Amino acid sequence: MTTQMAQEIAEQPDAVRRTLTALRPQQGEIRALLAGRRRVLFAARGSSDNAAIYGRYLLETQAGLAGALVSPSIATHYRSRLDLSDAVVVSVSQSGATEEIVATQEWARDCGAATIAVANVADSPLVAAADLALVTRAGPEVAVPATKTYLTQLVAMAVLAGALMDEPGELDAQLDRAPEEIERLLTVPVDAAVSALRDADFAVVSGRGLMMGTALETALKLEETCKRPVRGYSYADLRHGPISVVTEGITALLVAAQDGPLLSALVDLAADLAGRGARVVGIGGDAVFALACDVHVPGPDLTEAVAPLGAIVPGQRIVESLALALGMDPDNPSGLAKVTSTDRDS
Amino acid sequence: MTTQMAQEIAEQPDAVRRTLTALRPQQGEIRALLAGRRRVLFAARGSSDNAAIYGRYLLETQAGLAGALVSPSIATHYRSRLDLSDAVVVSVSQSGATEEIVATQEWARDCGAATIAVANVADSPLVAAADLALVTRAGPEVAVPATKTYLTQLVAMAVLAGALMDEPGELDAQLDRAPEEIERLLTVPVDAAVSALRDADFAVVSGRGLMMGTALETALKLEETCKRPVRGYSYADLRHGPISVVTEGITALLVAAQDGPLLSALVDLAADLAGRGARVVGIGGDAVFALACDVHVPGPDLTEAVAPLGAIVPGQRIVESLALALGMDPDNPSGLAKVTSTDRDS
Repeated sequence: MTTQMAQEIAEQPDAVRRTLTALRPQQGEIRALLAGRRRVLFAARGSSDNAAIYGRYLLETQAGLAGALVSPSIATHYRSRLDLSDAVVVSVSQSGATEEIVATQEWARDCGAATIAVANVADSPLVAAADLALVTRAGPEVAVPATKTYLTQLVAMAVLAGALMDEPGELDAQLDRAPEEIERLLTVPVDAAVSALRDADFAVVSGRGLMMGTALETALKLEETCKRPVRGYSYADLRHGPISVVTEGITALLVAAQDGPLLSALVDLAADLAGRGARVVGIGGDAVFALACDVHVPGPDLTEAVAPLGAIVPGQRIVESLALALGMDPDNPSGLAKVTSTDRDS
Repeated sequence: MTTQMAQEIAEQPDAVRRTLTALRPQQGEIRALLAGRRRVLFAARGSSDNAAIYGRYLLETQAGLAGALVSPSIATHYRSRLDLSDAVVVSVSQSGATEEIVATQEWARDCGAATIAVANVADSPLVAAADLALVTRAGPEVAVPATKTYLTQLVAMAVLAGALMDEPGELDAQLDRAPEEIERLLTVPVDAAVSALRDADFAVVSGRGLMMGTALETALKLEETCKRPVRGYSYADLRHGPISVVTEGITALLVAAQDGPLLSALVDLAADLAGRGARVVGIGGDAVFALACDVHVPGPDLTEAVAPLGAIVPGQRIVESLALALGMDPDNPSGLAKVTSTDRDS
């Protein structure tokens, strides 16, 4: 029996193709909306927040535009009046119906920001109220864990960044190759990684820079879907203290791109964690990274800027398999709802 | 025998007084440096990052200024050229010698930002290179866990925000009262909270808005000093999914201010967590919040904007006592150094 989650993971190559086709023609509108504005803020929660983290790194590293993540409570509870007349606020919600994000977008507009909505539901309040909507084409997602909606949010981030780059040619070429790489990653073996996580007392997940959102998303899915005691760390936060809790019995899951200025640091981290007795599972990276890991799962053959579109796929498959191995239903993790509400009474 | 950490916790009322006296006369310089600039970015790691999170909320809620936290890898590894000519970058490091933060400050200046250093060491590279230095007066800190250096960083954040507020009178009056409130919190009983955390299989720590940095700092200290399996969450991130892993055997530590727009949400969260079988330890809040908790530790009688200066103190004392109860040396947690380096080889 195939789970709904596994089916939706497998639909991702097509979902990415459809979304690229739909959103690329909007790049002129994106440029027009940004004209004269100097920064991009993101508003999101949960998986969408992890997509936004990728979006911020992408804009800062590829388009020279400073980004930030809005704290929704500033909008919804403190109702602070900030001057956002030089900003575009990108609100990300797969349903387009997360009340807190809808309210934050409204607040941003009141503060003078231009607004872009990224949602998978065209007929949603977030889309209706935005200056510009980037509607992802994941199709209906039935399983509770977001997979194809998350991955198509990453596509929206890449289209957004591409619109604002001076020379987007290389990014575009890599994006064109993403669907076939995702296809390939649907079949790489993940059994050894699943075993290493099943047997762990505790797991830490880490990545850095453009891959940080991927690490946090993989950790969130392991926690929510598999109920594993797991924590996602940025590389630096892990190094800066919590690495001292890493001992035998812990599995460390590291995600890396095959290139980029942070790869060598991830190789060192893998060796350090192994030296502390952790079992190290690596996704992606290069041959040297693979050698530094106890268990290695291949990642995408894509440059760092686009690698997150592929690197999440083995992580999704690990989560789905681990849930089944633990006797859980990955499609309906206990205690989770599809559309989330931060404040149930508001 | 008194630990060094306990001594340094006890020195905090004086450290706060000295720092307030030293930094308040610099508020004119702060205003002058901000003139014509529209946003404040923070660069920090570890405990200093938790102080910066408070700084950002304070500026956004009290001074109407948009803030953000810089990702140091953007500076140190990607070397992105961002236009920061409308920004002030506040770099926070107790030693003033964290190489990554020194490098990030230099990068920020190259990108056009004005720079403010917050450090406890006047003769440090961070201070030497900044346009303006706010040197905290914690005095020498010997124990590895940052306590009085962290608390005086919060003072620097409050002085910074006060300089940029139209009507700082209430904030200033509350700051004047902070030392006596910290003094009082040195003696409130924390034994029941220590027991609840000692017996927990796993602990989650949460807070929201202005108190979020306090929650994250308390979690970081529990993890680093007591080696507890613990995770700090923003309120929203916890609500948005991970709350589903909360069951019996988990202790939830919640920090709340006695007032403010987020208090009622924390009361609801306490009740929700208790309903899931968690043991709920609360610090601060009001009488209703105290009733919703299984164990309650009094917090400061300070308004929300200044409450973090007091609310961290019971947390510090819980950490010190718990380390001793677990047979650990709180002054020298294994695996931690006082001056940290994110990239050991750079």
